[in-house]
Amino acid sequence: MSWLDEVKWDGQGLIAAVAQDALSARVLTVAWMNRQALAATVQEGRAVYWSRSRQKLWRKGEESGHVQRLVELRLDCDGDAVILRVEQVGGIACHTGRESCFYRVYAQDAWHSVDPVLKAPSEIYRG
Amino acid sequence: MSWLDEVKWDGQGLIAAVAQDALSARVLTVAWMNRQALAATVQEGRAVYWSRSRQKLWRKGEESGHVQRLVELRLDCDGDAVILRVEQVGGIACHTGRESCFYRVYAQDAWHSVDPVLKAPSEIYRG
Repeated sequence: MSWLDEVKWDGQGLIAAVAQDALSARVLTVAWMNRQALAATVQEGRAVYWSRSRQKLWRKGEESGHVQRLVELRLDCDGDAVILRVEQVGGIACHTGRESCFYRVYAQDAWHSVDPVLKAPSEIYRG
Repeated sequence: MSWLDEVKWDGQGLIAAVAQDALSARVLTVAWMNRQALAATVQEGRAVYWSRSRQKLWRKGEESGHVQRLVELRLDCDGDAVILRVEQVGGIACHTGRESCFYRVYAQDAWHSVDPVLKAPSEIYRG
């Protein structure tokens, strides 16, 4: 039995994939993987997701250069989520130019952006 | 506009919810929340999820005592995932008696259980 068969793909053939910085331990991104994406992630040693909006494989960093190099891959007890401990190239995971996509904190009935933009998106995504 | 309206609930009305230990920074669990679960989490100051298998609210720790006390709540850039930084009561998040549900590591085409069982499930879930 393949290690890929032990994963419990949902009705759309997906699992949740959490990328965590291997050094800072900060959670950087939550994205989705199908079987092909998870196999490619292991084979290529970098995070490869399934884009639900574009309905295609998405090699994280393919446009921005902000590749997530795979350090360790873990599966949870019920097999429907993985954690990727990664080396985040450029120190920026979010398309807004921030370290992490989780830059909004809840307080008093509102979300507050609390993390700095490290690089302007116009500098990241050039023509 | 309510802070709950800024969340991008999926076709089933759910988002992914990652619980991370506020002290060790370890990712403990990935579960799901609907609008009611997220509102209850904030109101009660503890993780309340939506159980997809049981189709009802699930107050984490309601049987085991392993409550996740909310320290900080963050939303990601596209609004379809949250991180809960939590104080994990009992130091055990997984129903198998382990600290984290992510106790299986990928290596050489297989998943390997690498984390110790801290308390037997039969001790956690009594009659």
